[in-house]
Amino acid sequence: MRQSKLFTKTRKEAPKDETSLNAKLLTRAGFVYKEMAGVYDYLPLGLRVIENIKNIIRKEIEKIDGQELHMSALQNKDLWEKSGRWPDKNLDVWFKTKLHSGEKYHEGGDLGLATTHEEPLTNLLSKYIDSYKDLPIYIFQFQNKFRNELRSKSGLMRGREFLMKDLYSFCKTEDEQKEYFEKARKAYLKIFEKLGIADTTYITYASGGSFSKYSIEFQTITDAGEDTIYVCEKCKVAVNKEIVDEHKYCPECGNKELVEKKGAEVGNIFNLGTKFSEALDLKYKDENGKENPVWMGSYGIGVGRVMGVLAEVFSDDKGLKWPENVAPYTFHLIRLSESDEVRKTSEDLYKKFKGNNIEVLYDDRDKSVGEKLADADLIGIPYQIIIGEKSLEKGIIEVKNRKTGETKEVDKEKIIDDLTN
Amino acid sequence: MRQSKLFTKTRKEAPKDETSLNAKLLTRAGFVYKEMAGVYDYLPLGLRVIENIKNIIRKEIEKIDGQELHMSALQNKDLWEKSGRWPDKNLDVWFKTKLHSGEKYHEGGDLGLATTHEEPLTNLLSKYIDSYKDLPIYIFQFQNKFRNELRSKSGLMRGREFLMKDLYSFCKTEDEQKEYFEKARKAYLKIFEKLGIADTTYITYASGGSFSKYSIEFQTITDAGEDTIYVCEKCKVAVNKEIVDEHKYCPECGNKELVEKKGAEVGNIFNLGTKFSEALDLKYKDENGKENPVWMGSYGIGVGRVMGVLAEVFSDDKGLKWPENVAPYTFHLIRLSESDEVRKTSEDLYKKFKGNNIEVLYDDRDKSVGEKLADADLIGIPYQIIIGEKSLEKGIIEVKNRKTGETKEVDKEKIIDDLTN
Repeated sequence: MRQSKLFTKTRKEAPKDETSLNAKLLTRAGFVYKEMAGVYDYLPLGLRVIENIKNIIRKEIEKIDGQELHMSALQNKDLWEKSGRWPDKNLDVWFKTKLHSGEKYHEGGDLGLATTHEEPLTNLLSKYIDSYKDLPIYIFQFQNKFRNELRSKSGLMRGREFLMKDLYSFCKTEDEQKEYFEKARKAYLKIFEKLGIADTTYITYASGGSFSKYSIEFQTITDAGEDTIYVCEKCKVAVNKEIVDEHKYCPECGNKELVEKKGAEVGNIFNLGTKFSEALDLKYKDENGKENPVWMGSYGIGVGRVMGVLAEVFSDDKGLKWPENVAPYTFHLIRLSESDEVRKTSEDLYKKFKGNNIEVLYDDRDKSVGEKLADADLIGIPYQIIIGEKSLEKGIIEVKNRKTGETKEVDKEKIIDDLTN
Repeated sequence: MRQSKLFTKTRKEAPKDETSLNAKLLTRAGFVYKEMAGVYDYLPLGLRVIENIKNIIRKEIEKIDGQELHMSALQNKDLWEKSGRWPDKNLDVWFKTKLHSGEKYHEGGDLGLATTHEEPLTNLLSKYIDSYKDLPIYIFQFQNKFRNELRSKSGLMRGREFLMKDLYSFCKTEDEQKEYFEKARKAYLKIFEKLGIADTTYITYASGGSFSKYSIEFQTITDAGEDTIYVCEKCKVAVNKEIVDEHKYCPECGNKELVEKKGAEVGNIFNLGTKFSEALDLKYKDENGKENPVWMGSYGIGVGRVMGVLAEVFSDDKGLKWPENVAPYTFHLIRLSESDEVRKTSEDLYKKFKGNNIEVLYDDRDKSVGEKLADADLIGIPYQIIIGEKSLEKGIIEVKNRKTGETKEVDKEKIIDDLTN
């Protein structure tokens, strides 16, 4: 992509109404645009990051047999009345709307905007599941959720509309459900490893809500986090403040020396038991023809929130520092001047990258050296390939590692080989 | 994918409340599930079709320099008041909702659910466009639109929530805009060619709404279509009934022998002029420093509707007949019995396909021959690879072309080579 064609531009200042670091940086670098508090558009660079995060998650969830579908955002009130989660007093983040239609599918024509999908998915499956032979099954999607939060001041980390990966498991027995819960927990750890936040992400014991005693959260340590957690540094396990009265010790080793930290919840996994299957009549017949409710679990990762957390965790005073796996591009080709030699070398190199099917961001703009290098640091692509007159005279191109700040000199004829091996 | 693991099942009967052929077939075959009239979930097979359609469109739009982003569904009332499209009397398909927030971003906290994106995108670009050097630019997305239709009885062809590709152009002058309009028209023809509906899709002159005298629709001939068009069979051009009083002749050759047909609008392209840029203050400075409003165009393709139209156009009394480019899988491997020989050959072949990175649907279910073949015809994957005892004894595997109904016999040792060359 030629940067001269990219419609977004970097900004020196963040909008005054942004208080969170992630939204400031992502806005200044042109990754997102804020429509209103908690509602962001993903601009071209941001969408590339989102797609990379999705692909990392998709691969791991498919490995644990997830089948991907895509459910609607408009939801039928009837289903939520069955589970008791329609009234605002029971679920306080609803956005509700109304059908114009005189068809009256729903009393009063009320619809809800998806906050989550347990109810409609449980209902959908009741049309397909009949026998024990149909189970277990695991279903996931990437879908926009809508949550009418009272306050939304943490940028991408507290969305009113946000992209989520939600996975649901449907099992015959509690044991089968627990077994999958463990599989999902391991898959999540792999995902956070690939996202580059394994070291700072803690399995955290938290409230199970109305479903079960505990749930498991995945909390990434960052001062921008909205949660307080107590970490056992021996076991890499934590306890959410919300349940710490019961658990003043590490649930794995008994250690009482827990350290208070701020965490951002990047994922969570719940054993749902039979709450939804009983409310929405999702049963299966066992080997003896007896009907049983299906055991369920749900497993979420906030894709947009992950982008926000990565911006918090991987940044410095100059801007973003994307991990390679999620970066919008791996290489940022920067031509430092408009001299014939520099232009020609840059254009040739850009074509070579394209010829090798490597997409790069190519700063072909007629701007000052300072502006170009500052923009590159702000955007935070992992490797900056800097083409300048002086080094070219020596047959050399500089490659700067954005994360470490180190620069190395590479023979200009060998640059593609050097970078791709 | 092993069909025994796929959670969807085929149905002999369509739900009673479905009247349209596309929804009946897509529901029976397990591609979609209806949440309410005009609101469908895409189940795993359906999502694969949707992704294939998206990829075909994305490729062509990127060739005409489209930059992809993703905008929010929740929209700010203020922007729509500026263009005059907030009141229901001016735009009658709004779903509206309210913020809980006391933050009062919007008078009364009213929000709209995206019916389209001219207003927010024009506003967004006003933050990035400054000079003539920034133009032209072309921006597209795949995004769910919400339209509160009074009636929605055409299955996937009239959605209240539906996936749309929307592209917008931003140009310096009317001429530049017209030039891109022609480019987009050609790109659309390529897209419909790749979707397999070039022969039955007509460029159709239609009302330009409040933007311009005419717009161009792309109408696919089908009895299920909601539009009436008058076709010039010489020029492959049509006129929408809504403007036929003015145009009783072919706009290209003057032919007055137009044929009345039913069409489904799979795409449309509009010259928007400066309506939105003036309302939302999107200007650029020309070479002389003078401010001018930006010229705009918008270009839509209903992705979900295309899936519906394909189901209407490519189906018979046995079920769906997907074109290869959009089919959920190219090959349907069907083992006709549970004998050792048939099982072993089928399993080996399935592994070979996987080893060659070819995803197939593998019917490994223990069902009757009749049921399996009927399901395969209903699902409509282009090539059925039928593994039966009698043919295996002769060293042969039958391959049925779902579209033509023709069956050929292939040496079982050469089947992968035969099918992939």
